[in-house]
Amino acid sequence: MKATYMYGAGDVRVIDVPDPTLRLPTDALVRVVRACVCGSDLHPYHSMPDTPAGSPMGHEFIGVVEAIGAEVTTVSVGDFVISPFVVSCGTCEFCRAGLQTSCLRGGFWSDDTIGTGGAQAEAVRVPLADGTLVTAPVDENSDDGLLASLLTLSDVYGTGWHAAVRGGVTSGSSVTVIGDGAVGLLAVLSARQLGAEQIILMGRHQARTDLGREFGATDVVAARGDEGMAQVRDLTGGLGSQVVLEAVGHRPAYDQAVGVVRAGGVISRVGVPQYDDAPVGFGSLFGPNVTLTGGPAPVRAYIDQLLPQVLDGSVVPGKVFDRTMSLAETPKAYTAMDAREALKVAVRP
Amino acid sequence: MKATYMYGAGDVRVIDVPDPTLRLPTDALVRVVRACVCGSDLHPYHSMPDTPAGSPMGHEFIGVVEAIGAEVTTVSVGDFVISPFVVSCGTCEFCRAGLQTSCLRGGFWSDDTIGTGGAQAEAVRVPLADGTLVTAPVDENSDDGLLASLLTLSDVYGTGWHAAVRGGVTSGSSVTVIGDGAVGLLAVLSARQLGAEQIILMGRHQARTDLGREFGATDVVAARGDEGMAQVRDLTGGLGSQVVLEAVGHRPAYDQAVGVVRAGGVISRVGVPQYDDAPVGFGSLFGPNVTLTGGPAPVRAYIDQLLPQVLDGSVVPGKVFDRTMSLAETPKAYTAMDAREALKVAVRP
Repeated sequence: MKATYMYGAGDVRVIDVPDPTLRLPTDALVRVVRACVCGSDLHPYHSMPDTPAGSPMGHEFIGVVEAIGAEVTTVSVGDFVISPFVVSCGTCEFCRAGLQTSCLRGGFWSDDTIGTGGAQAEAVRVPLADGTLVTAPVDENSDDGLLASLLTLSDVYGTGWHAAVRGGVTSGSSVTVIGDGAVGLLAVLSARQLGAEQIILMGRHQARTDLGREFGATDVVAARGDEGMAQVRDLTGGLGSQVVLEAVGHRPAYDQAVGVVRAGGVISRVGVPQYDDAPVGFGSLFGPNVTLTGGPAPVRAYIDQLLPQVLDGSVVPGKVFDRTMSLAETPKAYTAMDAREALKVAVRP
Repeated sequence: MKATYMYGAGDVRVIDVPDPTLRLPTDALVRVVRACVCGSDLHPYHSMPDTPAGSPMGHEFIGVVEAIGAEVTTVSVGDFVISPFVVSCGTCEFCRAGLQTSCLRGGFWSDDTIGTGGAQAEAVRVPLADGTLVTAPVDENSDDGLLASLLTLSDVYGTGWHAAVRGGVTSGSSVTVIGDGAVGLLAVLSARQLGAEQIILMGRHQARTDLGREFGATDVVAARGDEGMAQVRDLTGGLGSQVVLEAVGHRPAYDQAVGVVRAGGVISRVGVPQYDDAPVGFGSLFGPNVTLTGGPAPVRAYIDQLLPQVLDGSVVPGKVFDRTMSLAETPKAYTAMDAREALKVAVRP
């Protein structure tokens, strides 16, 4: 089959690889109906050292179950499934606590520990299928927009939701969202669903911030740095926002979050940090009793809750996809997203 | 009157200063019945540059109201009062939210912005008396042990409580407390009151950890660094504690907290950080969805809740005081605490 591999910064290729097979009785094989390129895929796209063996890419997909191992009980051949961006057993202490990203037996797609390929491919072997996959009452011929929205449950909608939930967004909250990528925009949508009164979206790309307004942003701040922080302070009576959702992952976004959060407030990060150390001392987090939270979203914990409103169309998170490409075109999807010509590209194998 | 000033690292003196006076109609004058030296006073005791004018010391006290301004309504002359370690108005957005440490009009004792002296003195001018002081139905001739316990409501008990509350300690929690100073020990007491099932106290001073056991610690780990972290992991089924209360403030304590916290858990800091930057990236906080919280405790928000059990003797937080000295001896109190000959010294003017 065809699958997407990255060999170094800027070097993405679609190659022929052996078809995946069932290896363990808890596996399923899923034919990919839609996959996509993630903002987090752009981090290695900028920095990956040359890797002759390549690394399989893609961690978001929806598809149809083609085969199951003997111990799989919750999905059947022919089921339409949504796959979270981590594999999880569903039974360990962390899965039971709804923190599937820390599953004691699972792992991230493309990670050697679970031995799977990536999702930007024709098919994927899914370990621990019972704990990982969620079925949805649709089929691969369903409306394209619906499929796009279901695909967001694989990562970006659940990730935006995680940011908002961990941030403690509640009725009447003042929220600032940093970043106008797909996750930032869906953090806006999630904050609105959770009742936020004020949602300030910090982003510079008008097509994106317009979608942010459609999702519920009440204000847009295009400026960055000191000027951007000053504008957020002005919009919040000088106090800053109670909740800041950081959906970028670069250090300046962290500093911006610290600069706009209200004393006693929460910074909830879902952008994968591209830094290790950052200020946490008296002048940043400690003095004003600011809480720093977030991490990789256990989207598996949220799909059951978010799916009904996607199915009935009351929210349309799939609007973050502004292009669809074939699997062969996946390298172009990286280029387009990196150049910000595309917000998020769906891949149709 | 006599008051304690610090002039540089290791240089504490008791000097004659003018008696405080009422300056604003919202002021009260309080004659100090007991003050004390705080673990956080030891930070400048180690590092303060030479300061010819000196800096007034002390931010914890109980006392008797000697005079009030015309606008003060909640305390009267003769009232016995507990003073939190910050001055707060009681009416601003942050005070109403129970975050008096971020009061828009208040400030820290000895801070120029509020123009008060320190509490290691015979008397103190208390700005914003209505928002700051809490009365207690005792008098200065009450039992010494009771006065000691009331004095902990000024800072260390409320600070330990804040750590536990912010950490989300609840029935059945596994908690690790880092630091066997007064705040760490009262964090143990607080965690026990909030229902923690396992409380691991990391500390090396047996007299202190023995008091920690009396307050509710189920385990004591004397080792530090990798060995200490390994012991905590062993005690928690390899997973670490759900809540870590960090009551030291030095960088190694932060690293220890990161090393013993469970995925999805909370590090709640109340030790004043003596560092700015620290690891917050994928390998420390982000990957395992660890929350970092805490800050200076708004003890004013907790006194009403904690006072009844202090008055009825069902908790005796005053046990953290192992010495009482006269005001003239205050420099010796610093020496004794710095040398760890004393856990916490009460000062009786």
